Amino acid sequence: MTFHVITLFSESFDSYISSSIIGRAIRNKKIQIKFYNPRDFSDNKFKHIDQKPYSGGPGMVIQALPVVKAIEKAFKKSKKPLIIWLSPSGKQFNTEYAKKNAKKYTDIILICGRYEGVDERVRKIFKTESLSVGPYVLTGGELPAMVIMDSISRQIKGVLGNFNSLEESRASSPAVYTRPEVLEYKGKKYRVPKILLSGHHAKIEEWQKKRVKK
Amino acid sequence: MTFHVITLFSESFDSYISSSIIGRAIRNKKIQIKFYNPRDFSDNKFKHIDQKPYSGGPGMVIQALPVVKAIEKAFKKSKKPLIIWLSPSGKQFNTEYAKKNAKKYTDIILICGRYEGVDERVRKIFKTESLSVGPYVLTGGELPAMVIMDSISRQIKGVLGNFNSLEESRASSPAVYTRPEVLEYKGKKYRVPKILLSGHHAKIEEWQKKRVKK
Repeated sequence: MTFHVITLFSESFDSYISSSIIGRAIRNKKIQIKFYNPRDFSDNKFKHIDQKPYSGGPGMVIQALPVVKAIEKAFKKSKKPLIIWLSPSGKQFNTEYAKKNAKKYTDIILICGRYEGVDERVRKIFKTESLSVGPYVLTGGELPAMVIMDSISRQIKGVLGNFNSLEESRASSPAVYTRPEVLEYKGKKYRVPKILLSGHHAKIEEWQKKRVKK
Repeated sequence: MTFHVITLFSESFDSYISSSIIGRAIRNKKIQIKFYNPRDFSDNKFKHIDQKPYSGGPGMVIQALPVVKAIEKAFKKSKKPLIIWLSPSGKQFNTEYAKKNAKKYTDIILICGRYEGVDERVRKIFKTESLSVGPYVLTGGELPAMVIMDSISRQIKGVLGNFNSLEESRASSPAVYTRPEVLEYKGKKYRVPKILLSGHHAKIEEWQKKRVKK
C-alpha cells in the first residue's frame, strides 16, 4: 500500500510515522508514504497558495490549482487510487472502511485541508470521498491522515503479525489483568478477579463476554 | 492548560506538537505538555512493564503499578485534573466536550494504552473517564491524545485569535472558493458560483445556508 499525502505540513508527520507501527511497516516495506506539498506547485514567486474567500469574511482559502497539480502528480504515480478528502463534515471513517479499502486499493491519496478550507473546485475535478475521523474540529487534516494510515496499515497482511485478529477485537474486549495478583496501593488491596485464576477456560470466556467494556 | 500525557512513546508526539497550532500555543505559553513514561516507574531492572494476561491468550498487558505511579506523579503536579483513559470503547469525544472541559479544567491527564491493554485496576484506583476519538482501532492512545489536545487547545482563549468562532463553524460551513474566478484545467472551465461574485451579502448567506456540506 502506498499512501500519497497532500499537505502543506509534511514535517508534522515525521515522529509519528517513524516511531509507530507505521514506522515498522515502512521499514518492512509493507507500506510507503509519499508527500506532495501544494506550495511546490504554486506559480506565485513567493509560493503563496492562499487567498481571501469570494464570499467575504475572515480566514484564507487554499487555491485550487496548486492542490489540483499536487493531486495530479500523486495520481500519476498511483494505480486507480482512492482519493480521500479529509473534512469534519465527511462520512465517518471506521474499522470496516479500513478493512474493505486495505484490500481493494494499492494507492490511497489523502488530501489535508488547512485554513478556512480548500477551493471547492478541487472536488469537482477529482472524484474524492469526504471522510471524517470524528465529530470535532481540528486544525488541519494532518492528524486525521495519520489516524487513517494507522488504522488501514493494521489491516495490511504482515503489518501486525499474529496479533491481528486479537488486537482488532480490543474495542469490545473485556477488562484485562496481569501480575501481580494482589496490588497494594495506599493501604488498599486490589485483586485480580478470582475467575481469571481458575484456569477454567469456558467459565473465563463466559465472564469476559458479560464484562465487555462499555 | 497543562496536558499531562502518560505514554511509553513520547517521541512519537514530537513533530506534531512542535509544528502545529499546538506548537504555537506552547511557544505563546497558552498551554504546556508534560510527559510521564510508565517505564521510568518500573521496579524491574530491565524496565519491563508488560506481562502476559491472567486470562491467557496472546498479547501483553501493561502492569498497573508503573502506570499508577506515573499518573500519581502527574496528579501531584495538577489541580483537580480531568483524567482521560483513551480507549476505542470509551465515550465519543466531540467539540462540545472540548469546549466544556477547556473552561472547567487547568490540568488534563491523558493515559495512552498500548499492547493488549492496561491492567484494569488502574481505572479502579483513579477516577478516569474513558474517551474514544472514533469507531476504529489504532495502535495506541498517542494519536487520540494528539487529537484531543489539538481540539481542546483551539478552545483556549488566545490560541486561535480572531479565527476562533469562524473556524469552529467549518464543520458545517458551505463550499469555499477563491481566485481565480475561472479555473481552466484540461480544457474545461470551472467557475466560481455567480452568487458569490454578486456582493449581495444577504443572498450569499442564504445560498451558503442551503449548501451546507453533508
